[in-house]
Amino acid sequence: MEKLKKYVSVKDEDQFYHQGAVELLVFNFLLILTILTIWLFKNHRFRFLHETGGAMLYGLVMGLIIRYSTKASDVESGTVYECEKLKSGPSTLLINITNQVYEYQYKREISHHNVHGHHGNAMLQKMTFDPSIFFNILLPPIIFHAGYSLKKRHFFRNLGSILTYAFLGTAISCIVIGLIMYGFVKAMVHVGQLKGWEFHFTDCLFFGSLMSATDPVTVLAIFHELHVDTDLYALLFGESVLNDAVAIVLTYSISIYSPKENPNAFDAAAFFQSVGNFLGIFAGSFAMGSSYAVVTALISFIHLTKFTKLCEFPMLETGLFFLLSWSAFLSAEAAGLTGIVAVLFCGVTQAHYTYNNLSPDSKMRTKQLFEFMNFLAENVIFCYMGLAMFTFQNHIFNPLFIFGAFVAVFVARACNIYPLSFLLNLGRKQKVPRNFQHMMMFSGLRGAIAFALAIQDTESQPKQMMFTTALLIVFFTVWVFGGGTTPMLTWLQIRVCVDPDEDLKPEAASQSASNLDKNATKAESAWLFRIWYGFDRKYLKPILTHTGPPLTTTLPEWCNPVARFLTSPSAYGDQLKNNDTDYIINNDELTENYESSGHIPVPVQDRTGSTQATGMEDIHEGDLGLGGYKLRLEHTAGQPQMNSLA
Amino acid sequence: MEKLKKYVSVKDEDQFYHQGAVELLVFNFLLILTILTIWLFKNHRFRFLHETGGAMLYGLVMGLIIRYSTKASDVESGTVYECEKLKSGPSTLLINITNQVYEYQYKREISHHNVHGHHGNAMLQKMTFDPSIFFNILLPPIIFHAGYSLKKRHFFRNLGSILTYAFLGTAISCIVIGLIMYGFVKAMVHVGQLKGWEFHFTDCLFFGSLMSATDPVTVLAIFHELHVDTDLYALLFGESVLNDAVAIVLTYSISIYSPKENPNAFDAAAFFQSVGNFLGIFAGSFAMGSSYAVVTALISFIHLTKFTKLCEFPMLETGLFFLLSWSAFLSAEAAGLTGIVAVLFCGVTQAHYTYNNLSPDSKMRTKQLFEFMNFLAENVIFCYMGLAMFTFQNHIFNPLFIFGAFVAVFVARACNIYPLSFLLNLGRKQKVPRNFQHMMMFSGLRGAIAFALAIQDTESQPKQMMFTTALLIVFFTVWVFGGGTTPMLTWLQIRVCVDPDEDLKPEAASQSASNLDKNATKAESAWLFRIWYGFDRKYLKPILTHTGPPLTTTLPEWCNPVARFLTSPSAYGDQLKNNDTDYIINNDELTENYESSGHIPVPVQDRTGSTQATGMEDIHEGDLGLGGYKLRLEHTAGQPQMNSLA
Repeated sequence: MEKLKKYVSVKDEDQFYHQGAVELLVFNFLLILTILTIWLFKNHRFRFLHETGGAMLYGLVMGLIIRYSTKASDVESGTVYECEKLKSGPSTLLINITNQVYEYQYKREISHHNVHGHHGNAMLQKMTFDPSIFFNILLPPIIFHAGYSLKKRHFFRNLGSILTYAFLGTAISCIVIGLIMYGFVKAMVHVGQLKGWEFHFTDCLFFGSLMSATDPVTVLAIFHELHVDTDLYALLFGESVLNDAVAIVLTYSISIYSPKENPNAFDAAAFFQSVGNFLGIFAGSFAMGSSYAVVTALISFIHLTKFTKLCEFPMLETGLFFLLSWSAFLSAEAAGLTGIVAVLFCGVTQAHYTYNNLSPDSKMRTKQLFEFMNFLAENVIFCYMGLAMFTFQNHIFNPLFIFGAFVAVFVARACNIYPLSFLLNLGRKQKVPRNFQHMMMFSGLRGAIAFALAIQDTESQPKQMMFTTALLIVFFTVWVFGGGTTPMLTWLQIRVCVDPDEDLKPEAASQSASNLDKNATKAESAWLFRIWYGFDRKYLKPILTHTGPPLTTTLPEWCNPVARFLTSPSAYGDQLKNNDTDYIINNDELTENYESSGHIPVPVQDRTGSTQATGMEDIHEGDLGLGGYKLRLEHTAGQPQMNSLA
Repeated sequence: MEKLKKYVSVKDEDQFYHQGAVELLVFNFLLILTILTIWLFKNHRFRFLHETGGAMLYGLVMGLIIRYSTKASDVESGTVYECEKLKSGPSTLLINITNQVYEYQYKREISHHNVHGHHGNAMLQKMTFDPSIFFNILLPPIIFHAGYSLKKRHFFRNLGSILTYAFLGTAISCIVIGLIMYGFVKAMVHVGQLKGWEFHFTDCLFFGSLMSATDPVTVLAIFHELHVDTDLYALLFGESVLNDAVAIVLTYSISIYSPKENPNAFDAAAFFQSVGNFLGIFAGSFAMGSSYAVVTALISFIHLTKFTKLCEFPMLETGLFFLLSWSAFLSAEAAGLTGIVAVLFCGVTQAHYTYNNLSPDSKMRTKQLFEFMNFLAENVIFCYMGLAMFTFQNHIFNPLFIFGAFVAVFVARACNIYPLSFLLNLGRKQKVPRNFQHMMMFSGLRGAIAFALAIQDTESQPKQMMFTTALLIVFFTVWVFGGGTTPMLTWLQIRVCVDPDEDLKPEAASQSASNLDKNATKAESAWLFRIWYGFDRKYLKPILTHTGPPLTTTLPEWCNPVARFLTSPSAYGDQLKNNDTDYIINNDELTENYESSGHIPVPVQDRTGSTQATGMEDIHEGDLGLGGYKLRLEHTAGQPQMNSLA
């Protein structure tokens, strides 16, 4: 008996070990298949299925195979044991079984209804890996990469609109989905489909917030490939990046909203606490992410006379960059904030300051490293989504809820885009045209973030139903909308093949410059941005990077000793050579940064594309530092216009 | 009561989540500190403490802090529960505690003597992470990088010696350590220190095999920095890379050696089974690793007319390269072979074939990616070693055993290097001089592999004692020998600042060529290597890469249709331009590859360094493809010499 038991246990362990390898091998195999498929598609310029869609498809097929080719291996699966002596669940449980002590690690609390025969299937269990892996390992590189490749020039040109869509739009979307779903839930209760489940309005809002995270990765990839209009690209990219952060914090805030008495009644105190939570977490994460990036910038900036600069050791520099960015994420998590949001703003700040200090070698290394990590993580997530369809064991398919969710998601997207665009167009000089609005409406895909938020908690039955529904919506939007992007672009007559260098032409610049004065007062997001921009250019850039005007010229005279110490020697040199050659670019750049350049809103395909045709290339492949460099140029040449704005 | 319990459990989970972040943050912090320290050291050209030594030191300090600043948080720590109904340990345990089901994951079998109060300290527990992480996540990139940067030119020049040191040397080392330790164990039994423990000769051999894995990473880094003699570098690097593979498989073979009757008596059947296991696993892992690399080479080689080559999409190419190399590891693991060995030979083969097919962009990307992963993984392991000193909770310090181990390790290294060098010098044309032997003796550091092998099993008391001892030996050798490398080089008068381009001088080449005929028959490792080399050059290189002579010239005439199909169009072009300019390099290259070039063994510092002074740079930073390129050149120009050898 003793012998047999030992044998069984050793075999068990062995199986575990190998299954870890087998499980990873399955993912590797799926990713290799995906890469080969992408290669094939790229050869045939086939754009109806994006790589993420392909990864999901392969995952789905693999999930089907695993589901129906493996059997429950454990005899004792689904058996619940009683332990009278235990009063609460310890993190580590030591159990004496026939005179041998086994160590068990606490995994989770499990509801009675989730205990069933399938539970012991080790293969399925291994395949549905820990949801925290998404948040701690797979999402950070994706989000950091998004922030790191957020081209500031285009982003700031549309900053007001992007912030409106991201914050207000996500809130609207969340509430609309919540309300519609609450209606459907009431209907479901009416027809008796929710026997005894607790399903409050906050649960509907929770679903609304998680479904508000859009992920138009497919659309953006196609936009990038076809060189679609840059403003549209900037609007969509900016919205989707910030919107993720908003949706994540919103979901967290709603999940901890707990009214004291009746869960269905409105509790003002709890509501304001949630709002406070939202603001606190968002601001805290923002601060955490930015400050790590500032530290990185400072370290990479150090120019003590006795010291070799860090940039002479590209490997150390890349390592430090990577570790400090990751630390931003981990610190935020450890402090109870949201790591994803921290890492997003860390990425933005790194691109804005640190990137300028890196050696050319490290610039390329970091860019390629994060690009590669983003590529792998994205495809792993989409593979996993496909897999989860069949390997997740507690799906609850409720046709009414699913139908309701589809309706809610589309109505909410419409309530987000159209009214906000209308409002923004009142203020914007360069209107968001109708076909752009339709395209944005169409690009409301759901992806990695919605999935990751949904899989975090799948314990109760309502949450399981939400997870199943979210998964179906992701499938539908990625395949149908993702695949339909190219026809939709043609149908909406949106300009493609935009030359990213067009805006550098002198005539465009002078045209913009001439429009500047009369439009100056109506510039969108003008005052807030202007203050920050001036502060950044005059003080932050010179302190944190080797670019910008020397601090000796921007700080008051009595600060001169400090200013001289803090200013990089190379800043003086740059100062001298700025005045002549780059004047035109600089002029153009300034107008672009301060406001939309005052065109009459004509149909897009007829435009000459003086300013909206800027460097979409830059966003993905271009020199991230360019924006910073050009902004710096503005200092001497752009002074008169600055004054006219102020 | 119900409320309270729920609260406790939620708090528990929260704590877990945050501690995951905190734990990683600690590692990040240590790595950042290490990087900053390296930077500081590089500025001061301070070579007494290598980065790995620094990482270990920081880990040690951090471990000390964690050990004495955290307290056991769990009330129920160390309590063993009884469960009469359980007959064996299931992989997932569901337990009903006060009407709430908890899921527990099987972690491991635990010995009664390891159950004590410290067990529940969650922080310490989290910090001592799963040993399988070493083997599955941290070691593969290190080993792959070693294989990928193994410069074939230098490696093959000393192939015979390297194989001798790696295979025979490791076996000798294992047996000598085993015998000495058995003596010490007997002595310990005699003085009554091992009350009731089982400690067989196989356990001593197990310790011997795990302590035989040398890891001169510190020494090699300094060699690289100081441009130490290339032959010495090649010998040490080649030995340490292959020796890891041998030690790993040896350890595994010994651990499954189980004589049927008396464990102390010699069982011939079990012994031969172990030898068979060793050979089978080694050969199987080799085959697995190489075949994945060959598949990668084939995919990257595809040149169908309708298709764009994969190398036009560097990201896909890099991704595929990475995933297939990782798959080699995982497949070997899943097949019950040794992943580390597979990934080593995968790396060697990738560098030999696939690297030549990659686009210049991908060449750099893969090189930088693996370099970066190697850098991080290495420093994490050394940090962790430092941490383990204080966070590992079952150390057994036995002064006699530790003293014995130190003696055994040095005696074994001496029994490995000196007798084998003597034997090799009988056959070698270019002898291994005395001071090289002393330096190799001195470079017998123990590092990551020895540690990873020791931590794999720390369940029984003998294994815990071995782990503690191995850790101390690693500390001692890395700090003392690693730090003493530079003084030792001076003391042994080993040539530094070798110019890697020296061997490209024409006179050296012609000198070698003139020596060729009379030495041809005594070339070391001649016949086996010659057969393989010819086969590789004529058939494998042309099939798997774009280099080499067209298959149409190497295959018999009736194979022409197949040959034409398989040969890359670029091979014909290369063929034409080879004959003139590169003749000299080619000539030199050939002699270097075939044998040591026949110098009279003079003291090293007096040598002119005609051939032994070749591209040490290449090994770390140089163009990996160069070797392949040069080998290819040999075809037309080197034909006469080929014949003289055959």
